[in-house]
Amino acid sequence: MSKGRVCLAYSGGLDTSTILKWLINEGYTVVAFLADVGQEEDFAEVEKKALALGAEKMVIENLQKEFVEQLVFRAIQCNAIYEDRYLLGTSLARPVIARAQIRVAEETNCEYVSHGCTGKGNDQVRFELAFRACNPNLKVIAPWRMPEFIERFQGRQDLLKYAAENNIPVSSTPKTPWSMDDNIVHCSYEAGVLEDPDHTPPKELWTRTVDPVDAPNKPIEFTIHFDKGIPVKVVTPETTVTDSVELFKLLNKIGHDHGVGRVDIVENRFIGLKSRGCYDTPGLTIARLAHLDLEGLVMDSKVRELRDQFVSLTWSRQLYNGMYFSPEREFVENSIIFSQQNVTGEVRLACYKGNTYVLGRSSDASNLYSESDASMDSLEGFSPMDTTGFIEINAIRLKKYGLQKIKDGKPLSTSY
Amino acid sequence: MSKGRVCLAYSGGLDTSTILKWLINEGYTVVAFLADVGQEEDFAEVEKKALALGAEKMVIENLQKEFVEQLVFRAIQCNAIYEDRYLLGTSLARPVIARAQIRVAEETNCEYVSHGCTGKGNDQVRFELAFRACNPNLKVIAPWRMPEFIERFQGRQDLLKYAAENNIPVSSTPKTPWSMDDNIVHCSYEAGVLEDPDHTPPKELWTRTVDPVDAPNKPIEFTIHFDKGIPVKVVTPETTVTDSVELFKLLNKIGHDHGVGRVDIVENRFIGLKSRGCYDTPGLTIARLAHLDLEGLVMDSKVRELRDQFVSLTWSRQLYNGMYFSPEREFVENSIIFSQQNVTGEVRLACYKGNTYVLGRSSDASNLYSESDASMDSLEGFSPMDTTGFIEINAIRLKKYGLQKIKDGKPLSTSY
Amino acid sequence: MSKGRVCLAYSGGLDTSTILKWLINEGYTVVAFLADVGQEEDFAEVEKKALALGAEKMVIENLQKEFVEQLVFRAIQCNAIYEDRYLLGTSLARPVIARAQIRVAEETNCEYVSHGCTGKGNDQVRFELAFRACNPNLKVIAPWRMPEFIERFQGRQDLLKYAAENNIPVSSTPKTPWSMDDNIVHCSYEAGVLEDPDHTPPKELWTRTVDPVDAPNKPIEFTIHFDKGIPVKVVTPETTVTDSVELFKLLNKIGHDHGVGRVDIVENRFIGLKSRGCYDTPGLTIARLAHLDLEGLVMDSKVRELRDQFVSLTWSRQLYNGMYFSPEREFVENSIIFSQQNVTGEVRLACYKGNTYVLGRSSDASNLYSESDASMDSLEGFSPMDTTGFIEINAIRLKKYGLQKIKDGKPLSTSY
Amino acid sequence: MSKGRVCLAYSGGLDTSTILKWLINEGYTVVAFLADVGQEEDFAEVEKKALALGAEKMVIENLQKEFVEQLVFRAIQCNAIYEDRYLLGTSLARPVIARAQIRVAEETNCEYVSHGCTGKGNDQVRFELAFRACNPNLKVIAPWRMPEFIERFQGRQDLLKYAAENNIPVSSTPKTPWSMDDNIVHCSYEAGVLEDPDHTPPKELWTRTVDPVDAPNKPIEFTIHFDKGIPVKVVTPETTVTDSVELFKLLNKIGHDHGVGRVDIVENRFIGLKSRGCYDTPGLTIARLAHLDLEGLVMDSKVRELRDQFVSLTWSRQLYNGMYFSPEREFVENSIIFSQQNVTGEVRLACYKGNTYVLGRSSDASNLYSESDASMDSLEGFSPMDTTGFIEINAIRLKKYGLQKIKDGKPLSTSY
Repeated sequence: MSKGRVCLAYSGGLDTSTILKWLINEGYTVVAFLADVGQEEDFAEVEKKALALGAEKMVIENLQKEFVEQLVFRAIQCNAIYEDRYLLGTSLARPVIARAQIRVAEETNCEYVSHGCTGKGNDQVRFELAFRACNPNLKVIAPWRMPEFIERFQGRQDLLKYAAENNIPVSSTPKTPWSMDDNIVHCSYEAGVLEDPDHTPPKELWTRTVDPVDAPNKPIEFTIHFDKGIPVKVVTPETTVTDSVELFKLLNKIGHDHGVGRVDIVENRFIGLKSRGCYDTPGLTIARLAHLDLEGLVMDSKVRELRDQFVSLTWSRQLYNGMYFSPEREFVENSIIFSQQNVTGEVRLACYKGNTYVLGRSSDASNLYSESDASMDSLEGFSPMDTTGFIEINAIRLKKYGLQKIKDGKPLSTSY
Repeated sequence: MSKGRVCLAYSGGLDTSTILKWLINEGYTVVAFLADVGQEEDFAEVEKKALALGAEKMVIENLQKEFVEQLVFRAIQCNAIYEDRYLLGTSLARPVIARAQIRVAEETNCEYVSHGCTGKGNDQVRFELAFRACNPNLKVIAPWRMPEFIERFQGRQDLLKYAAENNIPVSSTPKTPWSMDDNIVHCSYEAGVLEDPDHTPPKELWTRTVDPVDAPNKPIEFTIHFDKGIPVKVVTPETTVTDSVELFKLLNKIGHDHGVGRVDIVENRFIGLKSRGCYDTPGLTIARLAHLDLEGLVMDSKVRELRDQFVSLTWSRQLYNGMYFSPEREFVENSIIFSQQNVTGEVRLACYKGNTYVLGRSSDASNLYSESDASMDSLEGFSPMDTTGFIEINAIRLKKYGLQKIKDGKPLSTSY
Repeated sequence: MSKGRVCLAYSGGLDTSTILKWLINEGYTVVAFLADVGQEEDFAEVEKKALALGAEKMVIENLQKEFVEQLVFRAIQCNAIYEDRYLLGTSLARPVIARAQIRVAEETNCEYVSHGCTGKGNDQVRFELAFRACNPNLKVIAPWRMPEFIERFQGRQDLLKYAAENNIPVSSTPKTPWSMDDNIVHCSYEAGVLEDPDHTPPKELWTRTVDPVDAPNKPIEFTIHFDKGIPVKVVTPETTVTDSVELFKLLNKIGHDHGVGRVDIVENRFIGLKSRGCYDTPGLTIARLAHLDLEGLVMDSKVRELRDQFVSLTWSRQLYNGMYFSPEREFVENSIIFSQQNVTGEVRLACYKGNTYVLGRSSDASNLYSESDASMDSLEGFSPMDTTGFIEINAIRLKKYGLQKIKDGKPLSTSY
Repeated sequence: MSKGRVCLAYSGGLDTSTILKWLINEGYTVVAFLADVGQEEDFAEVEKKALALGAEKMVIENLQKEFVEQLVFRAIQCNAIYEDRYLLGTSLARPVIARAQIRVAEETNCEYVSHGCTGKGNDQVRFELAFRACNPNLKVIAPWRMPEFIERFQGRQDLLKYAAENNIPVSSTPKTPWSMDDNIVHCSYEAGVLEDPDHTPPKELWTRTVDPVDAPNKPIEFTIHFDKGIPVKVVTPETTVTDSVELFKLLNKIGHDHGVGRVDIVENRFIGLKSRGCYDTPGLTIARLAHLDLEGLVMDSKVRELRDQFVSLTWSRQLYNGMYFSPEREFVENSIIFSQQNVTGEVRLACYKGNTYVLGRSSDASNLYSESDASMDSLEGFSPMDTTGFIEINAIRLKKYGLQKIKDGKPLSTSY
C-alpha cells in the first residue's frame, strides 16, 4: 500500500530524479510537477523521464504570463532590488511556482509536497513558506533535510551510484563547475568554483548575455511605454510589441545581444549565511532603469521618498526572504499600486556594450515637471524672494546649532 | 564711505563678475573668494580679473584634500546616492566651499557673504544654510533674489550691456547652450536646451568622460584597497597610488578614459521643483561600486539593512538639501563611521566602454563569509534539520493567514 | 471701489475683530467665516459682532461630523501621536476648517482668504498650505506677517486702542494669561505664563477635564466597539451611542469627568522653534488607547511593525506640519485604511482619577490570537523542537559575531 | 561517569527543581546558577534546596547594578517600548542573566548550559541567542524542547509525581493561576486564567503596585535629574538619592505606592504567536516619561525624528527578540549614546492614583528652547515675513497637486 501521494517539484536533473526514485522506493506515489517559468528546458523530455522513473503523472504548467504580470511587473513598479545589486530573479519566480504546485497537489489529491532544494539555501525557505501559507494541511517532504537521505547521499558519487542502480538516466553533458537556475527573468550561477569570492566568473559562465566585449559596435535605440508603472509597449526600429510576455522577451533579447545585466555579488541569505552569486538579468535590468527614470519625471518627490525608503526596500526583502504569501507583503503591495497612478509615459533608451542609457523621457500624465517652472531663465509664477524666507526658516535650528558649537569652542567654520 | 565689506564667491564668469562690479557700484568693498575643489580653471586669470574689476583682494584656496577626505570619502562609506541615480557631486562640494568662504570672510573682517546662485536652484539653499550655521552673524547678499537686481538684469542681454558699460571682460568663447558646474567629483549640466527632458544630451556635452563608443576596445583591470570603508590604495597595471587626492584622480582618469559614470535624470530639487540634470562622475561611480561590493563580503546583514534604510538614504538627502551643518547630519554620520569598522579589503575591477565590472573581492577583516559555510557541498558545522524548525516557526503566522484566506473564500493557491 | 473681497476666518475675538475692521478700513469687502468644529462658542453672538463691524456676510458652518469622521477617526485608526505625546487636536481640525473656508470663499466670489494666525506658529502654515492646495488661485492676506500691520499693532495695547477708536466691542472677561484653542477633540493652552517651561500650569487652566484629584472616587466602566478601526458604538452602564459625533462626545464626557487626557510638553514646531503646549484631550486619549489595545489582539505583527514605523509616525508628522492636502498624505492614508481590515471587536475599559485602564478585549474578526496556541499548557499543533531550529538558524550570525569578539579580545561574556 | 557538567539556571521552583533532579538522574553533574536582578527571593533557601537536590554547587550573583546601569538606563535613554505599550522589563534582564550564566559555566568548566523556559515563549530564544553569541562552544540543554522530557512531563501532575518520587520539596503556597517573573524593573503575569484576553486581571494579581483606588489621596511631588539621558539624582520631599540602583528603587517605591505602571496587553511574541501579558513597572514608567519630557526641551527636532523612527523602535525590537548580543544592537546603541549629549537637566513630577504628571522641566545644556524665541509677543530676531516665503516654497508641490485634482474633477475643496 502506498504511504501516500507526493507532488514533487521535478526538473529532470540528477537530484530530483534521485528524489523521485527514492520516494517511490520509500513507498510513496509520486506526481511530478514542473513549472514553465521561461527556463530553457526540453519539457517533453522531462515528462518522458519522470514517467519512465515511475511517476504516476507529470504535470507541466506554463506560468510565464502569471509570472511576468503578477510578479515581474510588480518588481518593476517598485524598482525592486536586494542589497542594492540583485534584481531578485529567482525570488520572483518562487511564489508563482509554489502556488501552482499546491494547486496541482490539491487537484491530484496529494497529501505531501516535496522539492529538491538544499538545506542551506534560500529556496527551501521560499518554497516551504509558500506551501505552508497556501495550504497549511499539506505536509512537506524535504529530502535534503532528512537525516536518512543526507546520510545516504553525501556527495555526487552517491547520487551517480544510486542512478546506476536504479536505471536513472544521467545526462552525458558534463556538469558545469557551478549550479544554475534560470527563468524568463534571469539565470543565476552559484556554488562550486564560485564559492571563492575572488574567483572571476569565466567567460563561458554567462548564458543570458553576450560578453560586452563581443556585443555589437553600434548601440540599439528603442522605447518603452509605461501605463501606471507597467510596461505596455516596446518599440524598436524593427518591431512594436505589446503582449506582456512577448514584450519582456524582447527586452531580454535586446539586453542579451548587448551584454546588459550582469551582476556578481556576495549577498546575505535569509538564514544568516553569506553566499556568492552571479546573475544575468537582461530585460529586467533595462525595464527597471526605464521605470526609475520615468518616475523622476512624474512622481511627487515626497511620495517617492516614502516609497523608496519604506516600500521598495521592504517589498524586495520580503520577496528575497520568501514572504510573498504574507499579510505584510499584501500591505506593502497595496502601497506600490497606489504610488503608480501617474507613472504613465515613455522612455527612450539605448543599449551598448553592457550598458543601458536613457536618451529622453516624456509623459502627459503629470503636471509636476514643467519646463517653464524648471527654467533658470524664467521667473513666471515664481518669486525668488520667497526662497529667502524658506532659507531663513530652515536656518532657525541651524543657527542655534552653530552658536552652540562656537560656545563649545568647536566652531563649524573650522576645518577639522 | 563703504557700506561694508562683502566676501563674494567669485568664479570669473559673467554672472559673478557683474555681481562683483554691482556690489562695488552699490558702495560695498569686495573680497573675492574662489575655492579650488578640482574644477578646471585658470585660477591666475580669475584673480587678475577680480582685481581688475575692483576687488580689494582675491583669496583662492585649494580645498581638494579636505573635499576628498571629509566629504567624498564619507559618501563612499555610505554608498551615498540621491533618488537612486545622482551621486551628489555638487552637493558634496558645497559644505567645503561655504565653510572656507566663511573662514575667509571672518579673516578679512567682512560683515557680508555673497554668491551668484539663482533663486530657483539648490545651491543657494546649500550655501546659505551653511553660511547661517557656520557663522549666524554674517549677513547674506543674494543678488538674484533682490528685487532691484533681478529687475535690472532680466536676461543675458542686460548682463552683457552692463559688462560693456563697466569694462567687464567677456569671454570670447561662445556660451554652451546649458550651464555647467564642475569639481574633482563630477561635472553637471543643466538648463538651456536640457530643460526639455526628452532632448538627448549632445555628444559634445560630456566633459569628464569619453563617449563609450569611442572608449578603448580593451578593458582595463585594477584594484581598489579599502580601510574601514575608505579607499587607501589603487593599483593599476602601471602604477600604485595611495595619496587620497591622487588616488581619486586616478579613478577619475580610468573612468574618463572608459566612459564610466554618465547619468541623465529628472530630479526633485529641495525647493519642490523638478529639474533635469546630466552628470558625469567617473571616479566616484567606480569607487561606490567597489565599496558596495566589499560590504557584501564583510558587513553583517542586519547592520547593512539598518544602514541602507536609515543611514544612507538619510545622509544623501541631508547633503542634497544643504543640511550638512546640522545636528542630524552629525548624528547620522556617527553611524556611518561605526558601520565601517570591518570594511577593509580589496576589490578587483575592470572598466570597459561605459561600465565597471567587479572581478573579485577579498578581505581578512571579517569572519562573516566562509567558503565552507557557504558551500552547498559541505555540512560542516551546519545541521540542515535546523532549517525545518526555522521554517516552521516562521510559518506560524503565515499558516493562520492562509487559513483565514480560505475561510474568506480567497485561497492563496488560486492565481487571481 | 472695493479692493476686492476677502473671506476672513473670524472668531469674534480681539485679534480677528481688529483684522476684520482693518481690512474694511483698507478698502476690502469682508465675508466672515467661522467653522463649528465643536468649540465652546456663542455663534449667534459672533455673527452679530461680525455684521456690526461691517462684514458683508457671516457664514457659520457646522463641520463637526466631517471633522470627527474624516480626521479624528483616521487619527484613531493609526494611533496618531506627535513626538510621543501630542494627540494633534489642533492639527486635525485645520484641514477641515481650511477646506470649508475655501469653499465659502469660492461661493462668495472672494479673491482673498485671510486669517489671524501669528507669524511664529504652526497654524499659519497649516491654513495656508491647505489654502494653496485647495485653490491655488486665491490669494492670502496674513496680517500678522505684513510689515504695515505688525508695525501698527505691536502689542495688546495697540489692539485695544484701535478697538476703542473703531467701536470694536471688547469682552469684559479678563484675558487668561495664556492663549487657548479648542474644538471637539481638545483644548490647547500656550504662550503667556506657559512660556516658562518650568511653570506648572495652574489648576484653573484646564477646561476640558476635571482635576484628577477632584474626579469621582469610583471608576466608570464602559465598552468601545470598533469596526475596521473606527469606533462605532460606546456602551456605558447608562447608555448606548452609535452616532459618530455623539459617541465621540460621550467619550469626551467620560474623560472629562474622570480627568483623563492632560498633557504638558515642549514640542518642536514645523518652523524650527520649540514651544511649550498644554492640551487636554479626553475622548481621543481614551479612544486611542482602546484602538491600540484591540490591534494587539487582531493585527498581524509584521504589518503592525511596518505600520508603526512608517505609517503612524509619518501621518502624524504630515498632519502636524500642515501637509494634509498633499500627495504623500494620500499615499500614507491609503495604507492606514488597508491595515484596518480586521480591526473589528470590542474593548472594555475603565476610567479613574486621570487614567484609563483596559479591562479586556474580544474580537471575531481575526484568527491570530488563539488561547490554545498561546497556552503554555497546550502543545496542540505546535512542536517545541522546531524552536530549536529557529534559534540555531538565528544564531548563525551571532555565533560568528561572538567568535570575532573573542578573537578581538573583547569576549561578550565579559561584563564591561 | 558523568555525562558532563551543566550550568543550570535554577530558580528553586518546581520546574527547575525537576530539571535539576532529572539532569542528575540522566547522569550530568549540575552547577546551579541564580542571578539576583532584584526579584523577590529567599536566595539562601534556593541555595539550600539546590544543594539538597544534588547540585554540585550553587552560584548566586548580584547583577542589579549591571542590570540597571547597562540595560535599564539604556532603555530610558531611548524611551524603549515594544508595540507602544510594553516597557520590556523581562527582555532587559535576559542579556545580563545569560551573560553571567555563561561566565559561571566557563569558570566552573561546564560544557552545557541549561534553562527551564518553555518551548513557546520568548525567553528560551533570548537566553539561547545570548548563550550562542557569548560562547558558541557551550551546548544548550533545553528540556522543555526535548521529546523525552516533554513526553514524560505532560502536565503539572507529572511534575508533582516526580517531585514526590525524588524528594523534591514542593512549596505549600498554592500556585497562582498565572505565571510570574519579576526583577528590579517589573513583575510580569501571563498564562493560566490570563489566556482569555477578555478576563480582567484580579485585584490581587498585581504585586509591584498598589491598586490606584487604594493609593494615597494626595499626590507626591519629586524631581529627577538627568545627565546625558541617564537619571543621576532623584529628590523627594524626604530624601535625595544618587546611587544608580538605590535611585531606581526609590522610583519603584514612589510608583508602587501611587499605583503607577500597570499595563495589560496582547503582544506579538518573536516566534509568531500572540500572547496576553500583564506587567507592573513602576519606576521605569516614571523615568521613561521624565526622560521623554526632558528631550522635548533639549533635543533637536530632526535628530529626534530620526532617533524615534529608526533607533528607539529598532532597539526595542532587538531587545524583545533576544538580539542584544548582535552587531545590529551595537550599531543602534552607538546612535542612542550619541543622541544624548545634551539630555541633561531636571524634570519635576507628581504621581497620583495610577498616573504620573510632569510639573515642569529645566536645563542649561541646550540653547534650543528660548522663551523669547518661543514667545508670541516677541519678534526679536525673527522676521515673520520669512514665513511667507517658507510657506510659498513648501506650497509649490501642493499647488500642482491641487490643480491636478481640479483638472481630474476631484477638487480638494470638496468635502467628500
